[in-house]
Amino acid sequence: MPTFSRAFREDLKTLFRWRRDVRRFRGDPVPAETLNALLDLAALAPSVGLSEPWRFVTVEEAGRRAAIRAIFAGCNAESLAGQTGSRASLYARLKLAGLDQAPCQFAVFAEPDPEQGHGLGRRTMPETVAYSAVMAIHTLWLAAAAEGLGLGWVSILDPAAVSQALDVPRTWLFIGYFCLGFPETAQQTPELEQAGWEHRRPAGSGVIRR
Amino acid sequence: MPTFSRAFREDLKTLFRWRRDVRRFRGDPVPAETLNALLDLAALAPSVGLSEPWRFVTVEEAGRRAAIRAIFAGCNAESLAGQTGSRASLYARLKLAGLDQAPCQFAVFAEPDPEQGHGLGRRTMPETVAYSAVMAIHTLWLAAAAEGLGLGWVSILDPAAVSQALDVPRTWLFIGYFCLGFPETAQQTPELEQAGWEHRRPAGSGVIRR
Repeated sequence: MPTFSRAFREDLKTLFRWRRDVRRFRGDPVPAETLNALLDLAALAPSVGLSEPWRFVTVEEAGRRAAIRAIFAGCNAESLAGQTGSRASLYARLKLAGLDQAPCQFAVFAEPDPEQGHGLGRRTMPETVAYSAVMAIHTLWLAAAAEGLGLGWVSILDPAAVSQALDVPRTWLFIGYFCLGFPETAQQTPELEQAGWEHRRPAGSGVIRR
Repeated sequence: MPTFSRAFREDLKTLFRWRRDVRRFRGDPVPAETLNALLDLAALAPSVGLSEPWRFVTVEEAGRRAAIRAIFAGCNAESLAGQTGSRASLYARLKLAGLDQAPCQFAVFAEPDPEQGHGLGRRTMPETVAYSAVMAIHTLWLAAAAEGLGLGWVSILDPAAVSQALDVPRTWLFIGYFCLGFPETAQQTPELEQAGWEHRRPAGSGVIRR
């Protein structure tokens, strides 16, 4: 194992602190070689039984991007309708996706029953294939932030509609849709916290002992 | 956003390449302040609607650790029984968990319906609470590797049995059980690949375009 310097570990903490979910993007494109390098790094993520079950689908066709925007608009309107009182007006003011601006967009799926890995580690917990894909996404997210790029995770979507819009195998499990690009601004505070929607808990409050 | 140096980005790639799933641990303990610092970093992970749904349960009591080992032994025996031919003998030779050695152990759960976050982002995809917990785990995994510590994810477990053994709320969703400690050896090649169980695909093979 290489030894990592104190300076590296401090910078890594800074990366964790500044990695944001970005919904406001500048227009300049993400170079193709940058995206390819990020996708290669994502594949270094851990996976159950070394099954590498992640499937990245880059979305470039205008018609498919429009279909995703329409699915988001419908789902978001339904989510807004479920809010009441002051939460409803607050929700209506939130910008929850950068689908209109992000120069680079991709979806991530998981192969639910991959041959690769020979089933190891997922007999009692088949959801570990989805979890493996999530770690690949998170790897890409951190690597992107280290390059000054922002990623936004869009989950206000109907999985079946997304799979159809992107014409992928029906068996694939939809994990999320992602917007990638250079952020308009950099913030250490999550956008939902700035907007008054929610704030983080004190450190340590999610830990119990047994 | 801070600007990250080229040297940092190279070291980050090295970290991604060397982060292993570790099942063979040295006996020296993980200092309590190191574990606490890692848990604090894990809470910097992204979460759906800023819900921070992860629940870390550190497991120190000998009786509870023995219960986890027994659950693993039973599930692993069943998994072995499902293997046939040369795969069965290969499976039998794999060391799939460091439960017998790891000085530090913890389980991770997700609160499936957290009040925090006010439901944002998970109406159509409730599984995003589990995915948030997975990103907290992955954050801790990387931070641990940067400190020279190894993490092993144990998924060959019955979730209901684990929840009962650890006496956590029944509603919590079990994500995984983790072994943390200093690794016996450092390897850039995944242990499952060294053992001949599976190998990684060529870069780029998990990507399609639309």
